[in-house]
Amino acid sequence: MTPEQAMRDAIALSEAVRGTTSPNPPVGAVICDADDVVVGRGATQPPGGPHAEVMALRGAGERARGGIAYVTLEPCAHHGRTPPCADALLDAGVRAVHYAVADPTPAAQGGSAVLEQAGVTTTQGLLADDVRRGPLRAWLHFVRTGRPHVTWKYAATLDGRVAADDGTSRWISGEPARAEVHDLRTKIDAIVAGTGTVLVDDPRLTARDADGRLTDRQPLRVVVGTRALPESARVLDDSADTVVIATHDPDKVLTELADRGVVDVLLEGGPTLAGAFAKAGRIDRLLAYIAPALAGAGPAALGDAGVSTVTDMHRWVVEEVTMTGDDVRVSAVPAHQD
Amino acid sequence: MTPEQAMRDAIALSEAVRGTTSPNPPVGAVICDADDVVVGRGATQPPGGPHAEVMALRGAGERARGGIAYVTLEPCAHHGRTPPCADALLDAGVRAVHYAVADPTPAAQGGSAVLEQAGVTTTQGLLADDVRRGPLRAWLHFVRTGRPHVTWKYAATLDGRVAADDGTSRWISGEPARAEVHDLRTKIDAIVAGTGTVLVDDPRLTARDADGRLTDRQPLRVVVGTRALPESARVLDDSADTVVIATHDPDKVLTELADRGVVDVLLEGGPTLAGAFAKAGRIDRLLAYIAPALAGAGPAALGDAGVSTVTDMHRWVVEEVTMTGDDVRVSAVPAHQD
Ligand SMILES: NC(=O)c1ccc[n+]([C@@H]2O[C@H](COP(=O)([O-])OP(=O)(O)OC[C@H]3O[C@@H](n4cnc5c(N)ncnc54)[C@H](OP(=O)(O)O)[C@@H]3O)[C@@H](O)[C@H]2O)c1
Ligand SMILES: NC(=O)c1ccc[n+]([C@@H]2O[C@H](COP(=O)([O-])OP(=O)(O)OC[C@H]3O[C@@H](n4cnc5c(N)ncnc54)[C@H](OP(=O)(O)O)[C@@H]3O)[C@@H](O)[C@H]2O)c1
Repeated sequence: MTPEQAMRDAIALSEAVRGTTSPNPPVGAVICDADDVVVGRGATQPPGGPHAEVMALRGAGERARGGIAYVTLEPCAHHGRTPPCADALLDAGVRAVHYAVADPTPAAQGGSAVLEQAGVTTTQGLLADDVRRGPLRAWLHFVRTGRPHVTWKYAATLDGRVAADDGTSRWISGEPARAEVHDLRTKIDAIVAGTGTVLVDDPRLTARDADGRLTDRQPLRVVVGTRALPESARVLDDSADTVVIATHDPDKVLTELADRGVVDVLLEGGPTLAGAFAKAGRIDRLLAYIAPALAGAGPAALGDAGVSTVTDMHRWVVEEVTMTGDDVRVSAVPAHQD
Repeated sequence: MTPEQAMRDAIALSEAVRGTTSPNPPVGAVICDADDVVVGRGATQPPGGPHAEVMALRGAGERARGGIAYVTLEPCAHHGRTPPCADALLDAGVRAVHYAVADPTPAAQGGSAVLEQAGVTTTQGLLADDVRRGPLRAWLHFVRTGRPHVTWKYAATLDGRVAADDGTSRWISGEPARAEVHDLRTKIDAIVAGTGTVLVDDPRLTARDADGRLTDRQPLRVVVGTRALPESARVLDDSADTVVIATHDPDKVLTELADRGVVDVLLEGGPTLAGAFAKAGRIDRLLAYIAPALAGAGPAALGDAGVSTVTDMHRWVVEEVTMTGDDVRVSAVPAHQD
């Protein structure tokens, strides 16, 4: 196993636990023995449980001695709810540690210094971009800004409508796009929608599999707005937790969510709420499913975002364009990131 | 040269004269000698001039004897303004003719029968899809339906706006997209816009090169609507011909254009006129440049198209998605073609 293969494995492990570790980062770790054979694989356990390195070391046991650890994030150096991972790696006797991204948190950083001082070679940067843009994206954003990372997801027609004139919006996008969104919901901490969407569409805002069954993990459901919801609203059923935040201020929403340990948010609309987030500069990623359909009427994907002239438009950079079934999927990030 | 390479050459020749041959089809022809060496290349000349086969045979001269002709369209069998191409091929002594697509016009078809009867082997279908979707698309549509082929081109933000709230729309899309549109304008017969766009934007609707200079060929400029235009409107300057059609009926527009020998139309907006064409089922292809920008206000790409509920939306099939500079370019055709 080459170092790059080992780190790819660690990234996959990291991806696999996305949405289950917040407010901790979803980290992946791979231990190779002295002959470069993988002897342990691990990922961050839910809060309070062991970190990735410890899980991987448990798998490796004595075979870790003289081996190499590959970790997506710099091993921590602090006693939190669990002992420092740097110590665990020293105890296990690994001779080298490759990590992709340095730990930016004041309390936890310094793991590599601890390791180096004890004679363990540490290397930073292997596949760092993949990790930064991938599994640790939301968490790194959270650590940097103090705010949860917001992905605005919407499904629109080619002429930018998220519903028809009569308000009907099922199903603008196709089955593969909807399945992908349910998969995404299992990997984030909270889904946010406005009272407008809840009152019109009465969505469940749960993550469901192809048969419509609830998946094991459910994100927190968040409804933003001041209007009262009927007791019968599906979003209030007992299939997942729900919080109603009676404000129009995106930052109030994000602060309240941060307080609840939410790191990664999926903003699912509608246009009014998305417009407010866009205006406040609080959309960190955009995920558009553009259905090959034309409506000619109906609400546009984005409501008032404080733009009146073309030079003031919010500018983005397309990260990736692909087809999801018959729909065009566009992933973009702000042109000027804070 | 393989038969496929020769036909690709013929397609490229055909593409190169798009926009210069209407109402005749832009055809390309390649002549190989008995040793499969290319000895002649030709493309349809402007109306009244020689057809592609004759041009290629002129290039080949005596070397065509015993050779093979590759043509994008079945050679014609009729005396129009020029003598039949089938006869020219017989006179030149080619032993075989490959053509991609059969000629559907009652007057011209039968060229392959004439050739076969004279002992020339004819084969139909080589790269036929490339030709049908490519250089002969508009002409085949025109022959089948009697109507010019309409490509609706628009530039919109990710939230589907073609202008900001104050009406400003330069420049929503980037420089590469605009250059591509100018290139497209040199290849079509007419550009159509509504009085709304002309009164608000005062566009030139000409084809210009990167330095802003008029290209050699200019499409007919067509303004649709009943409002009077100011004499100073740029669209009325002498850089190209302009016709104003005072109607709201897309079919009246298309009939008038067909009468003027227009086969291939670029509909450039705005939303009202595009909505009318969509409602009438008169958009045959859609070319969207989606700029990575969010506006949150401003006119949507498509105005009223007779759709009120989601199941009535006009459905399309994406043919191709690519990046043009920073913009997402989507090419689509109706899901249910007439
Ligand atoms: N295709 C899609 O991806 C998609 C996704 C979601 C929704 N939709 C469609 O969108 C439509 C609903 O649109 P919508 O815009 O009404 O929904 P919305 O954005 O979900 O909800 C609007 C409500 O959010 C609250 N709000 C929060 N912050 C606000 C702010 N800064 N300014 C103003 N209001 C704020 C207000 O609630 P209070 O008035 O209660 O205070 C407002 O009425 C439906 O037709 C639905 O089908 C489509
Ligand atoms: N980004 C882009 O790709 C793009 C392209 C073009 C325009 N635009 C923007 O679009 C805006 C102009 O929009 P618009 O919708 O007013 O322009 P438009 O569609 O070009 O013109 C509208 C006019 O077309 C006439 N018309 C023709 N058929 C009609 C029908 N069936 N029903 C109603 N009217 C018909 C009417 O003229 P009469 O009233 O004179 O009869 C109507 O007022 C501008 O802001 C411009 O910048 C953007």
